[in-house]
Amino acid sequence: MKKAVVLLSGGLDSSTCTAVAKKEGYEIYAISFDYHQRHKIELKSAKAIADFYGAKKHIFIETNMDAIGGSALTDGNITVPEGDANRSFNDVPDTYVPARNLIFLSYALAYAEAIEAEAVFIGINSVDYSGYPDCRPEFIEKFRELADVATKISAVDKKKIKIETPLLNLSKKEIVLSATELGVPLELTHSCYVGGEKACGVCDSCKLRLKGFAEAGIKDPVPYA
Amino acid sequence: MKKAVVLLSGGLDSSTCTAVAKKEGYEIYAISFDYHQRHKIELKSAKAIADFYGAKKHIFIETNMDAIGGSALTDGNITVPEGDANRSFNDVPDTYVPARNLIFLSYALAYAEAIEAEAVFIGINSVDYSGYPDCRPEFIEKFRELADVATKISAVDKKKIKIETPLLNLSKKEIVLSATELGVPLELTHSCYVGGEKACGVCDSCKLRLKGFAEAGIKDPVPYA
Repeated sequence: MKKAVVLLSGGLDSSTCTAVAKKEGYEIYAISFDYHQRHKIELKSAKAIADFYGAKKHIFIETNMDAIGGSALTDGNITVPEGDANRSFNDVPDTYVPARNLIFLSYALAYAEAIEAEAVFIGINSVDYSGYPDCRPEFIEKFRELADVATKISAVDKKKIKIETPLLNLSKKEIVLSATELGVPLELTHSCYVGGEKACGVCDSCKLRLKGFAEAGIKDPVPYA
Repeated sequence: MKKAVVLLSGGLDSSTCTAVAKKEGYEIYAISFDYHQRHKIELKSAKAIADFYGAKKHIFIETNMDAIGGSALTDGNITVPEGDANRSFNDVPDTYVPARNLIFLSYALAYAEAIEAEAVFIGINSVDYSGYPDCRPEFIEKFRELADVATKISAVDKKKIKIETPLLNLSKKEIVLSATELGVPLELTHSCYVGGEKACGVCDSCKLRLKGFAEAGIKDPVPYA
């Protein structure tokens, strides 16, 4: 059975991405990160989603990315700003974590190499846009080129590990519709940056999520404060 | 004063690389990794070298890369193989850690972005060759291209973070000579993979190091078992 490493935060996007990988016939190897994010609660959702999709294995990488600083998500002294669901490209919010997707993809590639997976799935999207530079198509394109020379499996064995981004060009509305169609257990997901049991409803992540559900005409099953 | 993030393992190469950055007028921000490597003892050397060069800051990233597996350096069940100082390109040894340099460079780039550093220094070299695909020039070239679109500082502010590899084309002999000329406190460095107080003298890393010292006609000041 072909294997895929899936980057799984437990949010709407990565959960939908897991469903896509599963539907495409991959055996799921999930990878999640405790990077000392304030919304560490998302990892409970990640576990629930990995379990739901019968992940063959689910590894948790723990890393003190707060030592690097520079982000409201890892520095308790920076307040999570109120969200803006229509962010322009040059408006990168304080919740941006320097090079986070690059770091996460690098681990995922390492894991894919170690278990001889064919693909890495990441649920980034650039339509209803987080404002993060490492969610854009040009970033992924360059990462693909790099992946092709970065590992033993690619450099020596000439096997490529595919970097799959099934949500890249979907709007949040389309992601919600797709998740619903695929039967993603949306009630298990967690997207809010603040990290309470109930979603705050006002951070960037909540606003984008609520916009997607509203435009899809579907009620978000997670509780809001 | 211009800032550089220096990837510092405490070995011969990264210590020499630190000396080069210092000589070029950079203020040193060192970054070291406890990735559950068997030779964690190298971090004592990293600290000593950072102190020696008056690093403005030295951060330690802790991360359970052993969860990924696939390497003799992070898996206690895989023996560190005897070294071969004349390794061919397709002979990647068991000490290869999947995507390690990619992961380390990604953190270094994140740190450089967070502190607004101009450059990242990494002491990789591809002449007396470790056999690791992520030590080759083509890997670094692709990483540079990726770095230019991966971060806020590059994508939005159009400022590039330089990825400096001053040792890339040096032989181990040349590195030893350069280290000696620069006054690197070689007695403080640690290169051995096995991780004892004394270097084993037979692993890949020891063999390459000893070859370099022998060819340079200089006595290695660290104790061997």
